[in-house]
Amino acid sequence: MCELLAMSANVPTDIVFSFTGLAQRGGITGPHVDGWGITFYEGKGSRTFKDACPSSESQIAKLIQSYPIKSEVVVSHIRQANRGCVALENTHPFTRELWGRYWTYAHNGQLSDYQDKFVVARYQPVGDTDSERAFCWILECVADKFGDRAPEDMQVVFRFIAGLADEIRQLGVFNMILSDGEYLMSYCSNNLCYITRRAPFGKATLIDTDVVIDFDKETTPLDVVTVVATRPLTNNEHWHLLQPGEWILFKQGELLPTA
Amino acid sequence: MCELLAMSANVPTDIVFSFTGLAQRGGITGPHVDGWGITFYEGKGSRTFKDACPSSESQIAKLIQSYPIKSEVVVSHIRQANRGCVALENTHPFTRELWGRYWTYAHNGQLSDYQDKFVVARYQPVGDTDSERAFCWILECVADKFGDRAPEDMQVVFRFIAGLADEIRQLGVFNMILSDGEYLMSYCSNNLCYITRRAPFGKATLIDTDVVIDFDKETTPLDVVTVVATRPLTNNEHWHLLQPGEWILFKQGELLPTA
Repeated sequence: MCELLAMSANVPTDIVFSFTGLAQRGGITGPHVDGWGITFYEGKGSRTFKDACPSSESQIAKLIQSYPIKSEVVVSHIRQANRGCVALENTHPFTRELWGRYWTYAHNGQLSDYQDKFVVARYQPVGDTDSERAFCWILECVADKFGDRAPEDMQVVFRFIAGLADEIRQLGVFNMILSDGEYLMSYCSNNLCYITRRAPFGKATLIDTDVVIDFDKETTPLDVVTVVATRPLTNNEHWHLLQPGEWILFKQGELLPTA
Repeated sequence: MCELLAMSANVPTDIVFSFTGLAQRGGITGPHVDGWGITFYEGKGSRTFKDACPSSESQIAKLIQSYPIKSEVVVSHIRQANRGCVALENTHPFTRELWGRYWTYAHNGQLSDYQDKFVVARYQPVGDTDSERAFCWILECVADKFGDRAPEDMQVVFRFIAGLADEIRQLGVFNMILSDGEYLMSYCSNNLCYITRRAPFGKATLIDTDVVIDFDKETTPLDVVTVVATRPLTNNEHWHLLQPGEWILFKQGELLPTA
C-alpha cells in the first residue's frame, strides 16, 4: 500500500510540516520505500518533484523540507510497490492536461482484473501500474462525457468522477486524490481522513517524528487550510475519518457539498 | 529570447557541466531571468524541475548542479519573457502525453498572428505563451495524422513534425527542441548548434563560467553524448551550427538521417 497526502488552502501555504511527517513513512516509520512524489500548484501552473528512491533518503525530499514552496493545492504520494516495478514512470502523482488545466492524481490501493475495464486511447499510461491506467480511464471518460470545454459547473464533473470511482472500487481498494489545480477531490475506499485548520490556530504534534508546530505563528486569522491523508499525521488534533465509498471536494480549503 | 539546452546519450549521463554554463545565462552572463526548467528522462519516465525565478539564484537550480541526475535525454530552457507573463505555467519545458510517452518541448523565439493557425482541442495550453500553443498544435496535428498508436517508423513522425515547424517558422522565430524520451529533435530558425562527444574524449572549458571538465575521466570509451544548445557552451571545441530551416534528429547520441 502507499500513503497519500494533499492540501487545499485559501492562501499559498507551505506543506513542509505535513510532508516532514509523511516522508518518515518512506523508510523510517513506514515501509513505503519504492519512491515518492509531490505536486505543487502555483496558479494554473504546477511542478512535480519525484524520486524512485525512499523519501527518507532522498536529496530532493530534503530540499522540499528545507525550501518552503507556497501553494494552494498540493498532491503527494509515497509508494510501496504492488503492481508495476520500481521506476520513475510508475511513481505518483501522475499528471495529464484536460481543458487547459493540469490534472494531478495519486492512488492508494490495488486493483484486479482491470485491463478490460480501462480501455483508453486519448490518455494512455506511460508506466505499467493499475493506478495510472485508472487515471487515464477517468480522464478519457470525462473528456468523452463533457467534450472539449469544461462545463460552467465543475462540481458536476467531480460528481461524475465519483460515479467512476464507485465502479473502480468494485475492482479492489481505491483511495484516490485528484485535483485540477482549483478543486481537490478525495475518494475513500478504506483509508482516508482530513482536517481543516482555521482560526483560532493551535499547536500540532507529528506522529511520525518529533516535530511540533504552532500554526498560530505561521498563519493569518483568515487562513483556511485543509490537509487530506491516508492516516492522521498529528496526534493531538481531530481528524475526520471517511467511510468506504465516501468522497469529499474542497476549494480554497473549504468543504463543498457533494450531494 | 531564451536559451535552449538538450542532450541525447547512449548511456545515462549527467548534464551538470552543461547546465552549469546555461544557468549562468539566467541572470549573470545573460539576461534570461524569467524562469527556467529542465526535464530528465529516466527510461520511459521523466521528471521536470522548474522555477519562475532566475536560474542563477534558484535553490532548485543549485540542487541540479550538485546532484547529478543521470539521464539519456534532457531538455532544458531558460526564459526571457516576451509573450506571456512570468509565471510557472509559462515556464518551459512543456510536457504532454501521446501514445503512452511523455513528449517534452522547449522553444526559443517569438511568433506573431498565430491564434488562427494554432486551433487545438485535444491538447490545450495551460499558460498564455505562443510557445506552448505551438506545441499543443504540433501534437494535435500528429495525433490527427497518425491516430491513437505510434507508427512502427518514428522517423516518419519527426519528418512530419519538421514540416509543421516549417509552417510555424513563417510566423516568426522558431528554434525548437522536442523529445519523446527516445528521440531528440531540434529545429533551427536562426540559433541552434550541437556537438557530439565520443572517444577519445578531451577537456572542455565553459564560456560562461570558470569551469573545466576532463570528459576522459567521466566517461567510458563507448559513450556517445550529444549536446544541443542555442549558442556554444564551450570555447575549445567545434560546435556544428545549424542553418535556418535545418533540423536534426538524434537517438542514443547518434545523428540520424532526416531526408
